[in-house]
Amino acid sequence: MPTLTHFDAQSQAQMVDIAAKPHTHRVAVAGGYIAMQAATLALISTGQARKGDVLGVARIAGIQAAKKTSDLIPLCHPLPLTRIAIDFDEASVHHPGVCGIFCRATVETVGATGVEMEALVAVQVALLTIYDMCKAVDKSMGIHGVHVLQKQGGKSGGWQIANHEIQR
Amino acid sequence: MPTLTHFDAQSQAQMVDIAAKPHTHRVAVAGGYIAMQAATLALISTGQARKGDVLGVARIAGIQAAKKTSDLIPLCHPLPLTRIAIDFDEASVHHPGVCGIFCRATVETVGATGVEMEALVAVQVALLTIYDMCKAVDKSMGIHGVHVLQKQGGKSGGWQIANHEIQR
Amino acid sequence: MPTLTHFDAQSQAQMVDIAAKPHTHRVAVAGGYIAMQAATLALISTGQARKGDVLGVARIAGIQAAKKTSDLIPLCHPLPLTRIAIDFDEASVHHPGVCGIFCRATVETVGATGVEMEALVAVQVALLTIYDMCKAVDKSMGIHGVHVLQKQGGKSGGWQIANHEIQR
Amino acid sequence: MPTLTHFDAQSQAQMVDIAAKPHTHRVAVAGGYIAMQAATLALISTGQARKGDVLGVARIAGIQAAKKTSDLIPLCHPLPLTRIAIDFDEASVHHPGVCGIFCRATVETVGATGVEMEALVAVQVALLTIYDMCKAVDKSMGIHGVHVLQKQGGKSGGWQIANHEIQR
Amino acid sequence: MPTLTHFDAQSQAQMVDIAAKPHTHRVAVAGGYIAMQAATLALISTGQARKGDVLGVARIAGIQAAKKTSDLIPLCHPLPLTRIAIDFDEASVHHPGVCGIFCRATVETVGATGVEMEALVAVQVALLTIYDMCKAVDKSMGIHGVHVLQKQGGKSGGWQIANHEIQR
Amino acid sequence: MPTLTHFDAQSQAQMVDIAAKPHTHRVAVAGGYIAMQAATLALISTGQARKGDVLGVARIAGIQAAKKTSDLIPLCHPLPLTRIAIDFDEASVHHPGVCGIFCRATVETVGATGVEMEALVAVQVALLTIYDMCKAVDKSMGIHGVHVLQKQGGKSGGWQIANHEIQR
Repeated sequence: MPTLTHFDAQSQAQMVDIAAKPHTHRVAVAGGYIAMQAATLALISTGQARKGDVLGVARIAGIQAAKKTSDLIPLCHPLPLTRIAIDFDEASVHHPGVCGIFCRATVETVGATGVEMEALVAVQVALLTIYDMCKAVDKSMGIHGVHVLQKQGGKSGGWQIANHEIQR
Repeated sequence: MPTLTHFDAQSQAQMVDIAAKPHTHRVAVAGGYIAMQAATLALISTGQARKGDVLGVARIAGIQAAKKTSDLIPLCHPLPLTRIAIDFDEASVHHPGVCGIFCRATVETVGATGVEMEALVAVQVALLTIYDMCKAVDKSMGIHGVHVLQKQGGKSGGWQIANHEIQR
Repeated sequence: MPTLTHFDAQSQAQMVDIAAKPHTHRVAVAGGYIAMQAATLALISTGQARKGDVLGVARIAGIQAAKKTSDLIPLCHPLPLTRIAIDFDEASVHHPGVCGIFCRATVETVGATGVEMEALVAVQVALLTIYDMCKAVDKSMGIHGVHVLQKQGGKSGGWQIANHEIQR
Repeated sequence: MPTLTHFDAQSQAQMVDIAAKPHTHRVAVAGGYIAMQAATLALISTGQARKGDVLGVARIAGIQAAKKTSDLIPLCHPLPLTRIAIDFDEASVHHPGVCGIFCRATVETVGATGVEMEALVAVQVALLTIYDMCKAVDKSMGIHGVHVLQKQGGKSGGWQIANHEIQR
Repeated sequence: MPTLTHFDAQSQAQMVDIAAKPHTHRVAVAGGYIAMQAATLALISTGQARKGDVLGVARIAGIQAAKKTSDLIPLCHPLPLTRIAIDFDEASVHHPGVCGIFCRATVETVGATGVEMEALVAVQVALLTIYDMCKAVDKSMGIHGVHVLQKQGGKSGGWQIANHEIQR
Repeated sequence: MPTLTHFDAQSQAQMVDIAAKPHTHRVAVAGGYIAMQAATLALISTGQARKGDVLGVARIAGIQAAKKTSDLIPLCHPLPLTRIAIDFDEASVHHPGVCGIFCRATVETVGATGVEMEALVAVQVALLTIYDMCKAVDKSMGIHGVHVLQKQGGKSGGWQIANHEIQR
């Protein structure tokens, strides 16, 4: 039966030992989206020219948040991230029929453990930053579909998940 | 036509002026859930006794994250929070048929602007902390349905949203 | 029977509600000491002139740490501190026969809850900073006698404790 | 005559050069205790079941604080910690006759300098978190006996200290 | 003879007492510029369209840094900022003949002490962020002319300084 | 034509990939000065004895700030700094005729990218801390001449700049 590695034999939380794990190049990609009213999306999409660059601010917030992951998630190890990149699309590209913004974060390190938490934190904070900037005009926004898309490096090698495999 | 208040007349991002707004008692409640395999949920649910207290760790992470909101969300004002509380339920209580954990965060202040971002950050970081602790046994988890449930205080008085009104 | 206010009726940790408490001027004083070998104390005491200012560095570390209290102690409220002061004495002034440094921190606010945690954090981090600077020459140092000396303001008015009343 | 390495030839504080030191596996263990009234200890000891999990919250606070060590202690180097574990006992196990909680923190890294400051910070913040949660029912608590118990790795190899060797 | 208020009668650094000072609306404006080669300025100026938004990233960095002022400057009080705005111009608008970018930060609070340090921190970090993004193509950049332009509120009422009055 | 590496092919900001770069010993030195009235400089220069140690506080602030660089500058990588040292001189030593304080910061790492941003942040925050302590007696202070003096390590080997080459 599987057990949760963040707890020791006495069921006490701990930051698990990674001293003996080899340092390898690791990549994690996470994604998620914020759904909104069509009028809200229109305000963002025309932003660069007339309304301010909502996605540019959200991208910086996500990059900075990835670097704070071990401060936010209690049992995460601090890791020397070697790359962070964040992309946005209209959500309908990935989720037909959804009105909103999809965010994908790619985080890399050369280290002893994976960076999927860093990628997830980047996505969540980028989406929340969009929420913050749009909340005055739209109170119905919701954040959905946040999960890890793929990982490379480490003991398990490469791995990716199909959209339909995600628990909902 | 509505405009985004976080951008000035030249479309530059700014932290908006709240100096003249009265200080009132404000409450915000946000919620969201993490979906997972049934075996993962079983590990968490029996945790207090045998596997370690996943939800206890996630609750503390969410409380601490709410206090970091203005550090995470670039245009948020720092606010003196007067209360933070986080509750968990099985997700099926709120979303029939969903297997996972629902998180609700309540944040309060006496201040010049609302605390919905603080409540959302608390929910997201609490759910991500659950993700972190369970990711070794379940790579299919997804975070969904994160939104503001209700607000009290401020110019708009009380407000709450029905589940079906949320954009998906 | 007394109960712990940081837990709700379901025994869940929370940051307790202080919205309705009046804002008053509050002062807390905490103290504690680090014991060391006589040769170590001599290095510190002659420091200003020849060895570098150990206590000056420790004072700044303590002041800065007091401002991080709500980030360090999970259920502490963020408070707008209005004054922080840190004093050092030879420990023998307060604890006859002890060789080392005594630290006292005074923290003030105008707010809805007390600042004893901020004063205690300032003392602990100041003493740890002394430890850090001296650890290469003395591995026998110990930190002892850390407690709240007095409080003013708030519902309980003034309060102070005699040294012999402290639990050891 | 020994000198304090954190000061240069002009007696100015500095973060000392560790570029040429080899990276080795290092472990540090620190301990300390908080003394309290018997009724306070009883509240904590029965906590898991009825009063909330004081020690669970303190454990998370200590783990998170260890990761902030280089932010708290001015001349500490940032280090990639590979393990953090925190244990609690009744203080009387280690200090006969003392009523309270003993905390031990174990911190590990693979790096160029030791992690005793990280272990000490973890102990101090864990004990302060217990203080915070119990201060409403007991103002006589004191923190004592905080010191490094043992170190492994680095130039000096293994080292441990007997309780009676600690300066008081 | 004037004295430095951040030191007490024993010449020890302290965070000075502001508990008795009235809360008033306060504004501070600071400015400064980064000088660079003409080719570097050209890369930034055409950025919005083709090279990425250097000034947009710098603006967010400056806003976020202003909120960290009391964490960076040891004796600064934490203050609830009510507005932060950052503007950029070509430096030649303010300093004829200079090739580069001028940054002006406006910070406001309703509080017991001024916010000029927050405005200065915002300017410095915004300019350093420009430096970071351009350093691969220009190693000759320099930051100059950073000072407080004007203050409003508090005991001294309004105040502003002429460019020629600044010490160089 | 040169391009800005912090932006990808779609002109989006990113933290650039350094995974494949070798880890080498790197040093960066930055400098800058704060100009002030002669009476202000006199207060600082006599400080160690009678007015408090302004430069000692500024040195600690600069060292601590260097460790926060990746938190302040959005696209900077977190780096394990191996040494930080900060020196002060009267400004006239480096800039004849200038009344004030010159600050030089030396930062080192063994890593995949340079540390000039860390050195610049240390200088800026040290100078701002001097500003903070002296602002009550001198509102005419200005910060000038902040730039990188030299770098060692990495692909470009050694490099240094003459004062007259700096853009002003």
